[in-house]
Amino acid sequence: MNILRTHKLTDLPHLNLYRTHYEDRNGDPKAWVFTSRQDPPRLVSGKWDTPDAVVIVPYHVSRQKLVVIEEFRVVLGGYQYGFPAGLMDPGETIAATCGRELLEETGLSVSRILRQSPPVYSSSGITDEAVSMVFVECDGTPSNAANESSEDIRTLFVGPAEAQALCAAADRRMDVKTWVVLWSFAQSGTL
Amino acid sequence: MNILRTHKLTDLPHLNLYRTHYEDRNGDPKAWVFTSRQDPPRLVSGKWDTPDAVVIVPYHVSRQKLVVIEEFRVVLGGYQYGFPAGLMDPGETIAATCGRELLEETGLSVSRILRQSPPVYSSSGITDEAVSMVFVECDGTPSNAANESSEDIRTLFVGPAEAQALCAAADRRMDVKTWVVLWSFAQSGTL
Repeated sequence: MNILRTHKLTDLPHLNLYRTHYEDRNGDPKAWVFTSRQDPPRLVSGKWDTPDAVVIVPYHVSRQKLVVIEEFRVVLGGYQYGFPAGLMDPGETIAATCGRELLEETGLSVSRILRQSPPVYSSSGITDEAVSMVFVECDGTPSNAANESSEDIRTLFVGPAEAQALCAAADRRMDVKTWVVLWSFAQSGTL
Repeated sequence: MNILRTHKLTDLPHLNLYRTHYEDRNGDPKAWVFTSRQDPPRLVSGKWDTPDAVVIVPYHVSRQKLVVIEEFRVVLGGYQYGFPAGLMDPGETIAATCGRELLEETGLSVSRILRQSPPVYSSSGITDEAVSMVFVECDGTPSNAANESSEDIRTLFVGPAEAQALCAAADRRMDVKTWVVLWSFAQSGTL
């Protein structure tokens, strides 16, 4: 497999399509179209060390529950169950993005970072988007006072039985990472 | 939040960009650009009941290990650790896609489906791509005889200690779902 060259197909501010020409295992010419938040995309820049966004898995210490949000997602035309998440600002650390986004989206405060993943890829058939999964302890009282006008968020506190019920509900939209974490939490009762 | 209308911005065969105009919580006009494998995208078609693809989490019964693949991903310009996965063919069942893709990518055979998720969303900030996570038992001897010429895949068998090491290695690219499942498997030793 041999990457030859990459062209930008659109010229939009936040998200673009790119086409990469490559040779397959037989040396035959092929092309792959994908989307990126990066410009140029990572396979051109070689920037593999920084995620685009953080996904926060928050455990509320005093309530002893996981925090899940029900959020309006334009792309899904309705509400989705997911974890708080957000794009990293330029120069921001992962810890800072986690603290800022959790506060903005839920009103809760990060008290401790338990662990975090390296940059890992959302769906590498269609995008080079990378996220860091950050498991944190948090505390405080939920509030949507800091939601932006484009955000419409409800904060839920989820124990193992509620996690099991959410995972089984086929009539709700849910983020895939959230489904995997909630299923595991439903079985083990811990993060 | 009020969805107004959606325009197709590109005209490509497999993946396109769309722009959705909507009113935010204050009634102000906003727009969101995203990508979809669907045409029209799901928020236009209302097709929420079928995933685009399956992601297979295979447990090899006789070896008592998880199966992970190291696969060349054009979008990432190199190899990524992930689970076997693939797009559903028109009219195909989830079980059939799992059996076909696991065999094509690894040479292994699905012996039992343990559980599967509803359609869940890869990254709903940028795409309406939905996958079903399917946990299966499998058996057989790994082979890449059925790899397509655009596929370059190595099959690995992973126990809890190897899963822990893979999750900690920041110099390797890994799919986010795989990271979450491997981390959990490293702790519990079970799926």
